[in-house]
Amino acid sequence: MQAARLHEYTEEMDEGLTIEEVDRPEATRSDHVVVEVEGAGWCQTDNHIIEGMWTDYVDQELPMTLGHENAGEVVEIGEEVSTVEVGDKVLCHPHVTCGQCRACRLGEDMHCENAVFPGLNVDGGFADYLLTSERATIRLDDVDPVEIAPHADAGITAYHAARKAVPHLYPGSYTVVIGIGGLGHIGLQAIDAMSATTTIAVDLKDEALSLADRLGADHTINSGDEDVAEAIEAITDGAGAEQVLDFVGADGTTALAPDIVAPGGEHHVIGYGGHIHEPSQALVNGEFSFVGNIVGKYTELQELVALVEGGEMHLETAQYGLDEINEVAEALEHGEIEGRAVIVP
Amino acid sequence: MQAARLHEYTEEMDEGLTIEEVDRPEATRSDHVVVEVEGAGWCQTDNHIIEGMWTDYVDQELPMTLGHENAGEVVEIGEEVSTVEVGDKVLCHPHVTCGQCRACRLGEDMHCENAVFPGLNVDGGFADYLLTSERATIRLDDVDPVEIAPHADAGITAYHAARKAVPHLYPGSYTVVIGIGGLGHIGLQAIDAMSATTTIAVDLKDEALSLADRLGADHTINSGDEDVAEAIEAITDGAGAEQVLDFVGADGTTALAPDIVAPGGEHHVIGYGGHIHEPSQALVNGEFSFVGNIVGKYTELQELVALVEGGEMHLETAQYGLDEINEVAEALEHGEIEGRAVIVP
Amino acid sequence: MQAARLHEYTEEMDEGLTIEEVDRPEATRSDHVVVEVEGAGWCQTDNHIIEGMWTDYVDQELPMTLGHENAGEVVEIGEEVSTVEVGDKVLCHPHVTCGQCRACRLGEDMHCENAVFPGLNVDGGFADYLLTSERATIRLDDVDPVEIAPHADAGITAYHAARKAVPHLYPGSYTVVIGIGGLGHIGLQAIDAMSATTTIAVDLKDEALSLADRLGADHTINSGDEDVAEAIEAITDGAGAEQVLDFVGADGTTALAPDIVAPGGEHHVIGYGGHIHEPSQALVNGEFSFVGNIVGKYTELQELVALVEGGEMHLETAQYGLDEINEVAEALEHGEIEGRAVIVP
Amino acid sequence: MQAARLHEYTEEMDEGLTIEEVDRPEATRSDHVVVEVEGAGWCQTDNHIIEGMWTDYVDQELPMTLGHENAGEVVEIGEEVSTVEVGDKVLCHPHVTCGQCRACRLGEDMHCENAVFPGLNVDGGFADYLLTSERATIRLDDVDPVEIAPHADAGITAYHAARKAVPHLYPGSYTVVIGIGGLGHIGLQAIDAMSATTTIAVDLKDEALSLADRLGADHTINSGDEDVAEAIEAITDGAGAEQVLDFVGADGTTALAPDIVAPGGEHHVIGYGGHIHEPSQALVNGEFSFVGNIVGKYTELQELVALVEGGEMHLETAQYGLDEINEVAEALEHGEIEGRAVIVP
Repeated sequence: MQAARLHEYTEEMDEGLTIEEVDRPEATRSDHVVVEVEGAGWCQTDNHIIEGMWTDYVDQELPMTLGHENAGEVVEIGEEVSTVEVGDKVLCHPHVTCGQCRACRLGEDMHCENAVFPGLNVDGGFADYLLTSERATIRLDDVDPVEIAPHADAGITAYHAARKAVPHLYPGSYTVVIGIGGLGHIGLQAIDAMSATTTIAVDLKDEALSLADRLGADHTINSGDEDVAEAIEAITDGAGAEQVLDFVGADGTTALAPDIVAPGGEHHVIGYGGHIHEPSQALVNGEFSFVGNIVGKYTELQELVALVEGGEMHLETAQYGLDEINEVAEALEHGEIEGRAVIVP
Repeated sequence: MQAARLHEYTEEMDEGLTIEEVDRPEATRSDHVVVEVEGAGWCQTDNHIIEGMWTDYVDQELPMTLGHENAGEVVEIGEEVSTVEVGDKVLCHPHVTCGQCRACRLGEDMHCENAVFPGLNVDGGFADYLLTSERATIRLDDVDPVEIAPHADAGITAYHAARKAVPHLYPGSYTVVIGIGGLGHIGLQAIDAMSATTTIAVDLKDEALSLADRLGADHTINSGDEDVAEAIEAITDGAGAEQVLDFVGADGTTALAPDIVAPGGEHHVIGYGGHIHEPSQALVNGEFSFVGNIVGKYTELQELVALVEGGEMHLETAQYGLDEINEVAEALEHGEIEGRAVIVP
Repeated sequence: MQAARLHEYTEEMDEGLTIEEVDRPEATRSDHVVVEVEGAGWCQTDNHIIEGMWTDYVDQELPMTLGHENAGEVVEIGEEVSTVEVGDKVLCHPHVTCGQCRACRLGEDMHCENAVFPGLNVDGGFADYLLTSERATIRLDDVDPVEIAPHADAGITAYHAARKAVPHLYPGSYTVVIGIGGLGHIGLQAIDAMSATTTIAVDLKDEALSLADRLGADHTINSGDEDVAEAIEAITDGAGAEQVLDFVGADGTTALAPDIVAPGGEHHVIGYGGHIHEPSQALVNGEFSFVGNIVGKYTELQELVALVEGGEMHLETAQYGLDEINEVAEALEHGEIEGRAVIVP
Repeated sequence: MQAARLHEYTEEMDEGLTIEEVDRPEATRSDHVVVEVEGAGWCQTDNHIIEGMWTDYVDQELPMTLGHENAGEVVEIGEEVSTVEVGDKVLCHPHVTCGQCRACRLGEDMHCENAVFPGLNVDGGFADYLLTSERATIRLDDVDPVEIAPHADAGITAYHAARKAVPHLYPGSYTVVIGIGGLGHIGLQAIDAMSATTTIAVDLKDEALSLADRLGADHTINSGDEDVAEAIEAITDGAGAEQVLDFVGADGTTALAPDIVAPGGEHHVIGYGGHIHEPSQALVNGEFSFVGNIVGKYTELQELVALVEGGEMHLETAQYGLDEINEVAEALEHGEIEGRAVIVP
């Protein structure tokens, strides 16, 4: 089968991956599931992997097929698989988990002690076929795999952070969403669907803010034109926002926390472009937290699929062939992708 | 009456405060309470105030009487006070709150929008008498005000952080307590009284670790002799600690977080000597949080008093006269105070 | 001033209350607030009070002015009141609380140890003026007191139960609302505003179900025509509902719990017409709970006002003069009141 | 192999089960585990099963081998089992779960949609060998299977209820434990290990109360000699208990709730001898809940094992041979078993 593989870390996005012929994976365990990939979302993290930015955090053996936002049709199952069948359309949770460790048993799929992450540390879905397992597949009844593929990572990551924020929200509270891009515009909708908070969208680009507005944001702030902290102070009458979802995670966005988070509130770090630099005293004085976020639970992905099936999630996608994959990477590097790119092998 | 007052910010601890004669405060509102101070704990924060380290965070008008860990006897009450009487021994919560704002109504006394903080932004308790209010006093039935005074700030701060950590602890989990000083040794005991976690105490000084050991710590690590991250990895079998209570908050202790906090866990920032410097990606990869902490709720101080009355809290104190106050400041600056210093005016 | 007062418990609703002249209340404490009543909702509980159904639970001294859903204009304030002024329009929380006990400090206004409940154990708002306190008033900026009065009890009670249910809801879950009357139709809207659950409305009357449908219920069941348990089993594919809000509380509705509540779920008892009769084993086998509910927090009433101001709450009201009060009682007894009756003194 | 099997429901405990020869189970799935039973606790539920009391709730096919509190040594494993090996000592969680449904994924093992319950609806452990699965086994490192076997059901059930109660407890709160028998004495210790609440033990038998006292109960009440509600009112100074753990579940114990549960508190129904009969108004007025409880999570059983290994749990057991099994049933029926009976096949 065809697969887009990384042979060497590089800053040159236009030649990051190589399309080549590799063996089709097979179900060799009782719980294995082989999926014919119909759509595989391209993610900022793919650029980061190509640059070698994840080598400090996970073990990667090159060459490796990238692609961790996968959906398609089941073509082969292990002999004890009972929840999906050959022919089913499925969305793939990005973590293939053991189901035995404490994290798995409590639903914290991302913290599984024995997991693999196709596209990050084993072969992923920028290929004709993907090997995954029963615990990582969700059957789709009414949704097209191509349309929903980006939810497998972008969607669940945004939803997971929103789900952590929601219990702290109440009518009259404020929630700031920083970065209305691939993840942020999903996070904004998830917050809206699950709470009655007042939302404030922050971005550098007017088109992004205009999208936020269409998706129901109560306020928008262009961070290029306005002082974000002052604008939020004005909107919230000095109280600050109970929850901040930072889909950028740059030095400049994390530095907003002491000024924009309400006492006792939380600044969720979801994007990871930069650093946090803050005196301990700032966290003490405002009693706020920096909360890390990574992907999300399998059950959260199911919940997100329920939202999508209920028509409460709008996702902008654009389709590309496997042979266009390096152009997609290059375009994303320059902020030239509108909506989410989906590779259709 | 006599009061120890700050006239000018200075690095010279041995001449920070001036003992002088000022007017005794009077109850001029229906909820006012005037307390004859029997004990007032000296806190690291007093040194920080003298140095001017809080001017960025609160409005201070000098001269000001310091002292925010106060206990004593009620000598005058406003006409509608009903929960304490003249002659009652009381412990004073450090925040004098309005009782009307959302924070007050939900018990978040520290986030009251209209509070004053005696000893930080109005006159405090290093004096013969202190003005406070009914909402900030807790009647003491069986405890000596001098013995319990430090709990008014050191105690409640440590207890508050412990109370936030406890819901995440379970038998088999690990909790790290960094800094077994005035606050840390209370935090350790609070964790122990309210959970069945396994505790790991970290300090530079052997005497502190020996105290931790006597108070029931399951493991101790001398951070001068051992690599803390490696030692915790060995103790927890690579899993890390679900909760870390950092009573130091220095650059070196916050930097431990990515290596010692278990996935999804929390690093509580209680001490505030230094900074946090961390790539956003570290919080994302480990999905951990830096959680700010400041003092605590009135109801938490009541709970702490219940623990003290139940004999579950050991607090080491040493008494000093009001005239020795600058020596205490100087000695603390050099780490020469054993236990908690209590000023007895 | 004029007031509608209960002199004797009776089953005769058409002559329950007597309109008579009584003294206007005055602000005699520093936190007192006197309100000129503009609207006072009539509640099923008023009928229950007239019947003597609350004598086992609270101390009532007759004669007493009824009316616990009050809104109007501030005409006098105690000397230390700072959050409302004479001339402000206000909604009154039904519990006048002390602000000092543990329950008050944690926001649990209904559990205040020292509260009075105007209209239940002291004089209420079916009168020209009402005596309340600062802690029980919420300033209204954009809403008419007559329109919002019923939210002071009916609204907050429904909202409080919804607020307890919401943390257990997720996209894909099911919530049953039993009884789409004065409280139920608010509860349904609150659930809808604060979650992405699928709602199922149950009532005996087609008009009520038609209202539920207009307010956004996903499914409706007429309990006179259909077997409720079977209908819910069909809708939920056998899974049951994670949360049930029972605004009726009759023998027949509480008896549904073992069949309609999902494992680990909750059956909220809000209406109180009847009894619970259930073998302990039923609760064990399904691990479900019967959860009591009474009115709600002051902060919840603020949140509800925020929802109303945001246009997310539709409330049907009909206005009556003080002299029509017994006709209203009689009509409600026979289920002949459409929407919520508001007495306009 | 030998097994004690139920052929017919009966009230005659002395002839309930028949010892007979049956085939040894074999591992036929990749996740199967066959355990040589070393200890199998006898539980009140076994008496209830023999009486036919569970036929309304689960499908049972007779004859069936009873025994759901099992521990022993692994003698055979399926080909993909990786967390236990032949020769390991293990404790068996009573629910053999699928690991795929939402309940399993969130750790709610008892609510698994596809589970079997050996000894309740498939063959259990009163036999030489037991068939279970990897997800239902916990490796024991330092504990004797015979000593720990009753924790597989009695222990985890008590621990689970305690774990649900603990988040509501605080220093100064009160917790009532009703019934200091096989489950209750574990629940009492679990509450004690994980909180700083004040405990009140209630039982009819002085020996039970004397055991409670030795295990650390702060107060004891003999319900034969004293009015329980009055005694609790006196101990709690009228406030009631925040949490009640009712290990009896009889009409008389559930009827205590309105009088002994503090406002907003919970009455946990764990024992299931009788019924709940309560006006809805009682739950409304006190805003308390009746909370059902059944067994517990796999991770809770792991936590309980951690408590046992840490020496924080005292369990009284007495050993009997498989041939004495009907005498044990008969003796328990008459309250003549001291501690927990463990069948040693």
